[in-house]
Amino acid sequence: MTSAYPDRDLADVFAYIDAHRQEFIDRLVDYVRHPSISAQGVGIAETAAYIAGVIERLGMTSQIIPTAGWPMVFGERADAPGKPTALLYGHYDVQPPDPLDAWISPPFEPTIRDGRLYARGVGDNKGQHLAQILAIESLLACRGTLPCNVKLLLEGEEEIGSPQMPVFARERRDLLAADLVITSDGPVDESGRSRVLFGARGIVAFELRAHGANRDLHSGNWGGVAPNPLWTLVHLLETMKNARGEITIDGFYDRVQPLSEMERAALAQLPADEAAIKQSLGLTAFDAPHERGFTERLCAWPTLTINGLHGGYVGPKSKTVLPHKAIAKCDIRLVEAQTAAEIIERLQAHVQRHAPDVELIIHGSMDPSRTPLDSPFAAPIMRGITAAQGEEPLAVLSLGGSLPDYVFTKVLGIPAFGVPYANADQSNHAPNENLELDRFILGIKTGAAMLTCIADKR
Amino acid sequence: MTSAYPDRDLADVFAYIDAHRQEFIDRLVDYVRHPSISAQGVGIAETAAYIAGVIERLGMTSQIIPTAGWPMVFGERADAPGKPTALLYGHYDVQPPDPLDAWISPPFEPTIRDGRLYARGVGDNKGQHLAQILAIESLLACRGTLPCNVKLLLEGEEEIGSPQMPVFARERRDLLAADLVITSDGPVDESGRSRVLFGARGIVAFELRAHGANRDLHSGNWGGVAPNPLWTLVHLLETMKNARGEITIDGFYDRVQPLSEMERAALAQLPADEAAIKQSLGLTAFDAPHERGFTERLCAWPTLTINGLHGGYVGPKSKTVLPHKAIAKCDIRLVEAQTAAEIIERLQAHVQRHAPDVELIIHGSMDPSRTPLDSPFAAPIMRGITAAQGEEPLAVLSLGGSLPDYVFTKVLGIPAFGVPYANADQSNHAPNENLELDRFILGIKTGAAMLTCIADKR
Repeated sequence: MTSAYPDRDLADVFAYIDAHRQEFIDRLVDYVRHPSISAQGVGIAETAAYIAGVIERLGMTSQIIPTAGWPMVFGERADAPGKPTALLYGHYDVQPPDPLDAWISPPFEPTIRDGRLYARGVGDNKGQHLAQILAIESLLACRGTLPCNVKLLLEGEEEIGSPQMPVFARERRDLLAADLVITSDGPVDESGRSRVLFGARGIVAFELRAHGANRDLHSGNWGGVAPNPLWTLVHLLETMKNARGEITIDGFYDRVQPLSEMERAALAQLPADEAAIKQSLGLTAFDAPHERGFTERLCAWPTLTINGLHGGYVGPKSKTVLPHKAIAKCDIRLVEAQTAAEIIERLQAHVQRHAPDVELIIHGSMDPSRTPLDSPFAAPIMRGITAAQGEEPLAVLSLGGSLPDYVFTKVLGIPAFGVPYANADQSNHAPNENLELDRFILGIKTGAAMLTCIADKR
Repeated sequence: MTSAYPDRDLADVFAYIDAHRQEFIDRLVDYVRHPSISAQGVGIAETAAYIAGVIERLGMTSQIIPTAGWPMVFGERADAPGKPTALLYGHYDVQPPDPLDAWISPPFEPTIRDGRLYARGVGDNKGQHLAQILAIESLLACRGTLPCNVKLLLEGEEEIGSPQMPVFARERRDLLAADLVITSDGPVDESGRSRVLFGARGIVAFELRAHGANRDLHSGNWGGVAPNPLWTLVHLLETMKNARGEITIDGFYDRVQPLSEMERAALAQLPADEAAIKQSLGLTAFDAPHERGFTERLCAWPTLTINGLHGGYVGPKSKTVLPHKAIAKCDIRLVEAQTAAEIIERLQAHVQRHAPDVELIIHGSMDPSRTPLDSPFAAPIMRGITAAQGEEPLAVLSLGGSLPDYVFTKVLGIPAFGVPYANADQSNHAPNENLELDRFILGIKTGAAMLTCIADKR
């Protein structure tokens, strides 16, 4: 039998996608009309059923799989024995749309303005995984079969931290077995250039609660006598990170891997106009340590950020109060090969040693993820993107933010790649979330090209 | 001519005061019915006119003296050439009464319950300076003349920091010329025992404002890149006071005077049940440095209290935000012979050196005050209190809180004594402010006895 994929000439597929542009946009409009707010439990079942129906009509098997949280939607089509299996991950849930009055058009009444579709979830993540689905549809329409085997996993809890993902992965290893994972989420580079993400930093989110007396006191009558929980937090936090920007929790850096030559080279080729970034943020200098470059900070170093610190008087002028409680909310971003479990242990030991009366509450955690830059699937993915977009993507070592990629790389042992389709100013998690329609269409072509190139890999 | 004060037998005066108990209480009720909220400018002129009228009807000269703020009420009677002149200081303004719904009876509808009069300003300070006025009235009623010369100064801005007091004192040195100042404000000791205050700590109230980027940022995308104003404040505050409780602003302790033997002895005789205090506050330990006793901390050491620290996320669980601004509000309590001006200079230099981008805003300041324990007027005052109350008062080196006593001791060079009349649970500055009626009557007797004993001093 003659292969439907004798070469990588995808002109017919790209032409098909262009010809169906309006239909594909209409289908995206129809999809994002469905609210699916995981934090509030709004529209989840309806949206899961809707997208499962879309997958099924495509000619893939389709299942809605219950979990202890919101359900997973799973689809599969195995057309190519002996060819690699790509697992395409995405999420059908969206962020809450508040503040509603900041939206120019209502979040669930999709509206096109200036070549962009505005709707909650259009970029994060419905438009991006719908592009993958329409890539499959376009390949099938043009060739009757897929170049490689494809699995689709759409979860319903990404926006609330993917709590069921590691459980589900451990329980359903066979179902999820694949050669690589591709996640299209997040934005392309600020410059508009496409990129491939090889990893994401992990996270430990925690809170410190310090207590003083059983009530607020007068600073003149009790200052220097009753302990001040704000001073307690200042002194404790100071033991965790010094003014030079070094995190000083015992053993914190023990597992941080030095960068390889290849990784350094990848970092070096990333565009980062530090002067322009500073100007845009209104900064005269970056944070300490000053010798680290922009991309190195974001990809290769762990961080400890105080997200919030609150205690005592907050009104105008002054009030001579000695507060009785104070809280700090913090996050640690982890890099390879730190683990959340070990960092939590070290954090607990540190607080116990320096401020045993301070409560430490862990709000959530996620391991970091790193796929080697020389993974055998890296080159085919880059080739696919280049074929669809006419420009080589940037190779990004690791994302600054955190994604549950570790579920693929560490729980399942599958190399994972991020290939974002959204414009950099998509305003995800914010009012007026939007997706450039040209990028949506380009995403469909990119998805088709990547699956085709992957097929050639072995 | 025969002196009206052949000895210190005040039985007739005390009997007169007891006989007029109900009348005196009625007059207090009438006075506190007048709101005089300096912060809001409510009822100031009416109340000043009211109390000036009371003073005038007593047979003293009486003036309402305009200032750049609310007016001073001044009264004088010079019956005793060659005898000392006592300046009695008080304030006719009161704190705002909010929160109104926490009052059992309305703040300006004086109500007696269980031997206490409830009204805003009854203890702080109307009941206390009215007691001095009624002491003068009782002495005049019984003897026809006063044992010493008396001046009365009632200001209208004590509750907003006495901004006109130093100006007024400098401009009207002659008017205020006196041998000693007595202020009856604040409460007696927790034990119910009377006390004489020889000083008050000063204060510098300030705010630190740290700025990062021009907007809040995502901690994953910008942590470790954009400076975090909360970390900036943590590091700056840590340079100002260490975990051992030592204030580490350069030169901060330079002018702090070591305690004399007499001062140490006075501190030692103060009742302070540290175990009971800890229990009442729900504390297992006092603040560092642990080797300092309770009364020594409050009277003899400066403090640096963080009154409030705020920046970033404050809601439930976690939010991975990198805040763009943060503020800390602090107060420093000063002891003899620190000066507010010098400490402000040192603070400015410190912030400039350690965090030049942080804004330092001074909200207010006041010098400390200390009258020597061996002042020639100390013994007569103690004798007067003992004569009226049947128990020796405690000698308190310095109050933990701040009062504008420095205006008397430093601007005018007059020894100043605090002789509080109010019950310890007067709830001043709070809802349901009250004054025990027995203490009010005892205050009138104490005022009469002090003026009598002072007259014998020279």
